Amino acid sequence: MLYTADFLTNKIEEAISNISFDLKPKSLFEPIKYAISVGGKRVRPLLVLLATNMFGKEVEKSLKPAIGIEIFHNFTLLHDDLMDKSDMRRGMPAVHKKWNANTAILSGDAMLIESYKYVASVHPDLLPEVMELFSTTAMEVCQGQQLDMDFEKRADVTEAEYIEMIVLKTAVLLACSLKMGAILANASARDAELLYNYGINIGLAFQLKDDLLDVYGDAKTFGKNIGGDIVSNKKTYLLIKALKSSDKKQLAELMRWISAENFDKNEKIESVKNIYNELNLKSISENLIEKYYLAALDCLSSINVSDERKKELIYLSENLMYREK
Amino acid sequence: MLYTADFLTNKIEEAISNISFDLKPKSLFEPIKYAISVGGKRVRPLLVLLATNMFGKEVEKSLKPAIGIEIFHNFTLLHDDLMDKSDMRRGMPAVHKKWNANTAILSGDAMLIESYKYVASVHPDLLPEVMELFSTTAMEVCQGQQLDMDFEKRADVTEAEYIEMIVLKTAVLLACSLKMGAILANASARDAELLYNYGINIGLAFQLKDDLLDVYGDAKTFGKNIGGDIVSNKKTYLLIKALKSSDKKQLAELMRWISAENFDKNEKIESVKNIYNELNLKSISENLIEKYYLAALDCLSSINVSDERKKELIYLSENLMYREK
Repeated sequence: MLYTADFLTNKIEEAISNISFDLKPKSLFEPIKYAISVGGKRVRPLLVLLATNMFGKEVEKSLKPAIGIEIFHNFTLLHDDLMDKSDMRRGMPAVHKKWNANTAILSGDAMLIESYKYVASVHPDLLPEVMELFSTTAMEVCQGQQLDMDFEKRADVTEAEYIEMIVLKTAVLLACSLKMGAILANASARDAELLYNYGINIGLAFQLKDDLLDVYGDAKTFGKNIGGDIVSNKKTYLLIKALKSSDKKQLAELMRWISAENFDKNEKIESVKNIYNELNLKSISENLIEKYYLAALDCLSSINVSDERKKELIYLSENLMYREK
Repeated sequence: MLYTADFLTNKIEEAISNISFDLKPKSLFEPIKYAISVGGKRVRPLLVLLATNMFGKEVEKSLKPAIGIEIFHNFTLLHDDLMDKSDMRRGMPAVHKKWNANTAILSGDAMLIESYKYVASVHPDLLPEVMELFSTTAMEVCQGQQLDMDFEKRADVTEAEYIEMIVLKTAVLLACSLKMGAILANASARDAELLYNYGINIGLAFQLKDDLLDVYGDAKTFGKNIGGDIVSNKKTYLLIKALKSSDKKQLAELMRWISAENFDKNEKIESVKNIYNELNLKSISENLIEKYYLAALDCLSSINVSDERKKELIYLSENLMYREK
């Protein structure tokens, strides 16, 4: 039986809403419940189930590890928000704001442990491989977050370093989700690896698209405020590329905006965006996204199952690619 | 071959000193190296190896999971010190002081993941049981830390609640270490459980002894300053018991010291200690420690191996019991 992404997403939401957080002390588990319930698109667990289903297997046995990955993802958001001092998440106060920093630290730790419990519920024969994949990925995500924080203090981050960082911080967990779904479906090692590489490329396209939408997105459809990355001097692909390729005059203006402490937000956004436009960064960025997208599709096409079975993943990739939010 | 605790401790230290932390970025792994190298008595990994060896098995295969538990323990110290604002650990600056809060959060997260990597290196046949034990214990330790923090804000903590808290925060990890060593030696489920219960009781005796030494220890041999718990109003067994059993006059004096903001430390220590003395709390506490110690020995004596093989664990228990630091 082949399921649609919508059907599987409902299954995931249902399973998440059925998790019991009725454990003691409440001061530890209420914030966990809050963090997981607040939502999001549930992309990662969906990738687990789509991958399992793609190889013709039922998804029931993949549901718990899929939710484990979603819990892990929400743990990273919880600790990242605290470290980055981001006070809102999906329109709601972040855990460290709604409660406090200590609650965010300890509830986050408990979520990481809980994610392992869920992931470790797989068939014993598959457990060593699944654990290896999950722990390696989890460590890489930490490395990515550390690089991201380190980059904020550096002015000389290269494009290659940025790509390495977003591979670690974002792409590997998407890739891990897909590969885990494949392992749980007893797919061949070759197919599992192809799916992993598909995930890395889609992850890169996804993050670069995110950077792009922050500047060129439509305020009406994009969830966040347009230009937020520009205002906060976030080291995105666009900024790194601009710092590298701008001429003397453009660079001076960029640096002036980056170091400015008092400024009109819209003026800063317009000025920096102008430089991006002069440097043609929109289409340079779109070309790079296209490159990763095509590389992703290339991996997918080499996987040894019928095109029919790849349909849902292709829809999903298209949605991520052509989204406006 | 039966090994002494000293021999096994050297083995553990050697293995820890051989861990390579040469990973990128350094900003993530240097603090981990620091946290693990700073030392401590390595009691938990020693318990893993002693348990394995007790059942007549070689310890090589238990070394990696043992170190995993030590990494986990150091992760909890790292995050606890941050949450408790304890700036020193084993005479050295804590990670959040030597670096900063974000480093302590993320390096701690990475240590938790690293501990899973080490623990998951056991034989695949044993992995499901080991994972279940480790994750359950890890979650309990978080619950214990949360209870401990919650208790600091409450004046009505009961003795039973306190015992429950130290079971979770301290005793379960000692018990888990012993049980893991037993599982890795293919001990019977009954013997593994007896060893677990031995660990719970020894853990309780250990923590209560710690509370006692803070007040009645010898400043020369005790590592920390005598009376530190009294100065900081820490909810120890002695304070909880005193709040419960003191008369009106004693209670008023206790409450006055607890709420005092400006005071002479030594005067506070002497006055509170006087109340403890009047209430006979030293011997009440010693009796309770003795009770748990005897319960521990009782579990140990029921385990189905020769007395000869239990010798090292008995020495260790005696050391923990009759220590002055």
